[in-house]
Amino acid sequence: MSAVTTLLDDGPYGVDYLRRRILEEFPLARHIGVEVELAADDRIVLGAPFEPNANHNRTAFGGSQFCVAVLTGWAWTTRYLALQRVAADAVIQESTIRYLAPAYGPLRAVLQPPSLEGVEKFRRMLRRAGRGRMRLGVDVHDGATLVTQFHGVFAASIRQESLWPES
Amino acid sequence: MSAVTTLLDDGPYGVDYLRRRILEEFPLARHIGVEVELAADDRIVLGAPFEPNANHNRTAFGGSQFCVAVLTGWAWTTRYLALQRVAADAVIQESTIRYLAPAYGPLRAVLQPPSLEGVEKFRRMLRRAGRGRMRLGVDVHDGATLVTQFHGVFAASIRQESLWPES
Repeated sequence: MSAVTTLLDDGPYGVDYLRRRILEEFPLARHIGVEVELAADDRIVLGAPFEPNANHNRTAFGGSQFCVAVLTGWAWTTRYLALQRVAADAVIQESTIRYLAPAYGPLRAVLQPPSLEGVEKFRRMLRRAGRGRMRLGVDVHDGATLVTQFHGVFAASIRQESLWPES
Repeated sequence: MSAVTTLLDDGPYGVDYLRRRILEEFPLARHIGVEVELAADDRIVLGAPFEPNANHNRTAFGGSQFCVAVLTGWAWTTRYLALQRVAADAVIQESTIRYLAPAYGPLRAVLQPPSLEGVEKFRRMLRRAGRGRMRLGVDVHDGATLVTQFHGVFAASIRQESLWPES
């Protein structure tokens, strides 16, 4: 294990956990080459190499960028649910995406830190109603250039066979 | 060539042209299994099989649905530019997507017929300014169920080395 990996070691729901979940649950993620680079409470970073996502004109496919961004939001939500020990799956409900500039190289999708208010509201909704919605923003970069801005609403419903754990 | 193919024969910028363009220009489309089912002036239909796009939970990945929808809008724009003999590439500029229901089977993405006003404005902008924007809507169906609604703005810029053809 490299020094970098050790420095970024982030507990049971970290980089390795999210990488495994994404590759197991989204077959297309393998073709996009999605990698989890960082996983922390308020920071998720996913990456993807250029080649599998390069269009004929040598820019990154907007659809690939969407996939990497939506998986970044999904990763935060999935990690949060796991940390809260809530038996629920996260799904994307709606999103907007703006392409600001072409991407000519590998993609890096960086979660905007979720607001504490938003997280607390999500937690309360899950606890009271068994389901909640969480709005997340993701910036996609090509090197130092911000190429794409994504916002998505992720929903989670507690599975019927489970109960909110004792707190 | 089957009778169905013959019936749907739609000239030089039809199903075969768009299929070739999509598969050549977007390597990820092969992994999604994108097929062009119909290509006409006011109607484009793309399809994708379920399996390559199925999540672990046996619903279609929202990212795959986005890709099929964005390629449907791209296909209309690309076909329009070809028919108008405009040397320009279509790119997605921004979009919104709403997931209304899970998809449990093959996807069919159906372009909403573009408004004549919108098309005419797009044509005028291309001619006057060398670039234009076109707003398109795409509905994604799983069988008879509308599962996803996509709206996107596609932009095209005439390549500098080319001129608007004589009309």
